[in-house]
Amino acid sequence: MLTLVVDCMGSDAGSSVTVQGILDFLKINNECNIIAVGKKEELTLLEGNPKIEIVDARDVAPMTISPLEVMRARESSLYKAVNIMRERKCDGVISAGSTGGFLSCATIKLKMIEGISRAALVSPFPTKDGTPTAILDIGASNENTADQLVQFARMGRLYCQHVFDIKEPKVYLLSNGLEDEKGSPEVKEAHRLLKESNFPGFKGNVEARDALDGHCDVIVTGGFTGNVFLKSSEGMAKMMSSMIKKAFKRNIFSKIGYLLSHKGFDDMKEKMDYHSYGGAILLGVNGVVVKAHGSANAYSFKCALNVAYRMAKNDIVSLLKKGE
Amino acid sequence: MLTLVVDCMGSDAGSSVTVQGILDFLKINNECNIIAVGKKEELTLLEGNPKIEIVDARDVAPMTISPLEVMRARESSLYKAVNIMRERKCDGVISAGSTGGFLSCATIKLKMIEGISRAALVSPFPTKDGTPTAILDIGASNENTADQLVQFARMGRLYCQHVFDIKEPKVYLLSNGLEDEKGSPEVKEAHRLLKESNFPGFKGNVEARDALDGHCDVIVTGGFTGNVFLKSSEGMAKMMSSMIKKAFKRNIFSKIGYLLSHKGFDDMKEKMDYHSYGGAILLGVNGVVVKAHGSANAYSFKCALNVAYRMAKNDIVSLLKKGE
Repeated sequence: MLTLVVDCMGSDAGSSVTVQGILDFLKINNECNIIAVGKKEELTLLEGNPKIEIVDARDVAPMTISPLEVMRARESSLYKAVNIMRERKCDGVISAGSTGGFLSCATIKLKMIEGISRAALVSPFPTKDGTPTAILDIGASNENTADQLVQFARMGRLYCQHVFDIKEPKVYLLSNGLEDEKGSPEVKEAHRLLKESNFPGFKGNVEARDALDGHCDVIVTGGFTGNVFLKSSEGMAKMMSSMIKKAFKRNIFSKIGYLLSHKGFDDMKEKMDYHSYGGAILLGVNGVVVKAHGSANAYSFKCALNVAYRMAKNDIVSLLKKGE
Repeated sequence: MLTLVVDCMGSDAGSSVTVQGILDFLKINNECNIIAVGKKEELTLLEGNPKIEIVDARDVAPMTISPLEVMRARESSLYKAVNIMRERKCDGVISAGSTGGFLSCATIKLKMIEGISRAALVSPFPTKDGTPTAILDIGASNENTADQLVQFARMGRLYCQHVFDIKEPKVYLLSNGLEDEKGSPEVKEAHRLLKESNFPGFKGNVEARDALDGHCDVIVTGGFTGNVFLKSSEGMAKMMSSMIKKAFKRNIFSKIGYLLSHKGFDDMKEKMDYHSYGGAILLGVNGVVVKAHGSANAYSFKCALNVAYRMAKNDIVSLLKKGE
């Protein structure tokens, strides 16, 4: 039986979404126990469930908490959840709280897997044809070496095999051109290393404009660039969505136009909806660490628990240790 | 009287768009001469115009030409145009040909302005509220130092003052967080340098997701990251546009819906249309160098000529030399 530790307090919307997420998750998963960490008076809906243990934590780590501060915030639900994960050797920890705080705390407490020098945050992105693409690192680091990029390729491949069930993932490097010699110095060097080692499934470079057209299973990038990629895609999607809304609200004709055509736009919205992906996973540390979106709803938080469960069940940490 | 040199052959659509672009440009600008370089049999429409000199060039540099190859392609319209610009001390050179080839040829032939160690490619981006944002470097370099980022801030500020007519541009650094200490090592250092020198209009970091919401006049970034920003924004815009088309083509109702609401979507298309921006400018070399889009149409090419004209008239190169 697996056990997942949940920081119930980090989400923007408060504990109601995490509590509901846990209850929904347990409805479809019998083979899992939950340790719910947070203000116990907010977790009463979880009481009495034999699969749930409640651990009281009086503080909530703020979203802007620094790596140093988080290690001192010992009464926060975030710190406590990670600490329980380590001390009781649980199978995974999930939080919708501060990304920086959660990642530093998890990295310091759980330590890196031997042979991996930098953890990477990986997230699936929706693509044009509906199949997801895993991109890493999307923001755990501020700079990465070529060797770290090669490690990311390895971790991304395993993630893709065990989360997307793709046997032979196609792996690409994010660059500013398709040719082998294009890229920042680290990207060029990583390209050489991946090519010379015949890295399984390595297909070369991909440009950011083609990254989401569905032909890549894994896209490897440094944390700084990956973060810019994530946020510029998000920004453009947000900008165009607000333009679409405005276009339909223009006058009475366009409003009727919306009524006639909204089904296609609903489909589009669903395809672009990141909630179903449940959040990002920190790969490379000794344990399954899942960062749910700060703006997660109950459905999204349930999906984050599902991702953690799946990663733990497939024992991805052992696979990474073996370097498979 | 200013003189602009035009490579008439580089565009994807051939010389017809560049020729038409030149004719349209001259209709609105009397105070400019054009040296048109290309296969003379394709430039017959330009013959007999007292403002136009035609220079025959038999070769067309391919889009994939390398920096080394371009310097040997002496019969290409691209090389010839840059060479004429230098030898006859013209006021600007415009090409819709190979970005890499054009930039290397221009940098080598025209040389860098003293005090500037790296040229930057700058382009305006459409934003949510319609005002443009200038982003640089979007791809001239593969890596940049903190000092180079500071130079980009200086060049971007001047560009914004003289192309957008904004007296006190708001200048931001592209980073992975708003806080001063966020970013890659170079970005953090550039932040410190800009802040400590009280760089005029420097407002701190901006995240990629907010870059196009209209509050930034200039966004400074390294060439590799800038290129990822440009192309991921482009990619997401392309993906959503194709989804919008699909949503409207879904069935007979959605098609009627389109007829009722298309005006708002036409506006949106116009706002997002990069053609009116005319292309990217290479700042930092001794001369006005404008790279028109490879997929430029006649209108877009005319706009590129306009941008070059404006930059030359404002003598941006002297301003950059003075370090104003």
